[in-house]
Amino acid sequence: MDIVCLLFEGITALDIVGPYEVLQRLPDANVKFVAQSAGEVRTDNKFLALMADHSLADVTGADVLVVPGGFATRALEDDTGLLEWIRVVDATTTWTTSVCTGSMLLAAAGLLDGKEATSHWASLDRLKEYGAIPTGRRVVEQGKIITAAGVSSGIDMGLTLVARIAGDEYAQGVQLGIEYDPQPPFDSGSLEKAPAPVAAFMRELYGARGL
Amino acid sequence: MDIVCLLFEGITALDIVGPYEVLQRLPDANVKFVAQSAGEVRTDNKFLALMADHSLADVTGADVLVVPGGFATRALEDDTGLLEWIRVVDATTTWTTSVCTGSMLLAAAGLLDGKEATSHWASLDRLKEYGAIPTGRRVVEQGKIITAAGVSSGIDMGLTLVARIAGDEYAQGVQLGIEYDPQPPFDSGSLEKAPAPVAAFMRELYGARGL
Repeated sequence: MDIVCLLFEGITALDIVGPYEVLQRLPDANVKFVAQSAGEVRTDNKFLALMADHSLADVTGADVLVVPGGFATRALEDDTGLLEWIRVVDATTTWTTSVCTGSMLLAAAGLLDGKEATSHWASLDRLKEYGAIPTGRRVVEQGKIITAAGVSSGIDMGLTLVARIAGDEYAQGVQLGIEYDPQPPFDSGSLEKAPAPVAAFMRELYGARGL
Repeated sequence: MDIVCLLFEGITALDIVGPYEVLQRLPDANVKFVAQSAGEVRTDNKFLALMADHSLADVTGADVLVVPGGFATRALEDDTGLLEWIRVVDATTTWTTSVCTGSMLLAAAGLLDGKEATSHWASLDRLKEYGAIPTGRRVVEQGKIITAAGVSSGIDMGLTLVARIAGDEYAQGVQLGIEYDPQPPFDSGSLEKAPAPVAAFMRELYGARGL
C-alpha cells in the first residue's frame, strides 16, 4: 500500500510525522516522502530537515495521500503546479487526507467544493473561499476525503483511517503501540476550551502570521 | 535556550518530533538535532530520514536535552560513547528528558539510579536492571529529569516542560497552537485500557522485537 506524504519548505513537522507514525504501521505500508524536488526540506523554524526521497514528478499515484500544513501553505495555495499534482494523485487514491492547513491546499485544488472540511482553527473560515463547508469537528470524513484540524490532530486522523483500512482491532493495536493515551497537563487545545485571554492572544498571533 | 534533540539510526520519529514541535515554541528556543555523525538518520522502517545538523562531538552542553526511543535503543544501551555523551551533556542541563525507550539510555547512563521513571510499556520493567523505579505514570518528574511513556507521550511531556519553563498560560497557548485536543477514535492507549486480546497480541509482538 503506497502512502504518499507531501513535504514542502516551511512545513510544520508534526503535521506529517503524526499521521506517518500511525499509517506506517498498516500492513504492507510503503511510505514515500515527496517534495517539489528530492532532498532536504526545512520546517517553518529551520530547526529540522526532513528528507524527501522522491520529487513530485516521480510520484503520480498513491493509495493514501497525506497533505500536511504550516504557515507555508498560504503561498502554496497559488502554486498551480502543486495543485495540479494533488489533483492528479487524488484521481488515483483510495483515500486523500489532510492535516492542519493542508486542507487549504485540497480546497485550492478544487477537491473540497461543496464538502464539509476542517483545518487549523486559524484558517478554518477561509475554507469557504474555495467552496468548502468549514466544520469544527476534529476529523471530518467525506467519502474518500478525510481532513483533520490543527497539527496534532493528524494522529487522530491516522487512527481513524487505520480503522477504515484494517479494522477497529488493528487500529486499537496501533494506538497501544504508540501508547496514545493522551494526558495533556491542561485542557486548552481548542478555542472553546482555552482560557479566554490565551485564545485571544493566540488568535492575534496567528492572524498576524497570515495563516 | 539550547534544546538538544538526539537522533540515531532506527529512531521512532514521533518520539522526537512530538516534544520538538512543542519545545520549539518556547521563547528564544534554539533547537539542535544531533547524531553520532552529522547527516541523515533513518527511522526504524527506513521510510523517513531526519537530518542531524550536528555530531555528538560538536555538542557538549544543552539547556534541555531530549532523548527519544525506538527499537534501536536496546543495542545503544551498550554504546559507551553515547552514554558518556549523555552524562557529559546532562551535567550542563537545566532539564534532561526522555520519551519512550529513551529512558533506557538515561538509565544505562546511570542517571536514573534510585529514581522513579517511565518508558514504553514494553520496556518499563527493564528500567529496574539499571536501578530505576518503574512507574506507570505518563510523565514522571524527578528533579530536573523528566521521563515520558511510549512514543506519543512526548507531546504531554513537552507541554509539562513548557509550563515549568514559561508558565502555565504560555503552555496553554502552545497547546492551542498545535490544537492538541485529543480525540482518538478508541480508548486503547494503555495496556489497562486496550481490549485484552489487543493487549495480549501487542505484548507478544513487542516482546518478539526485543524492545
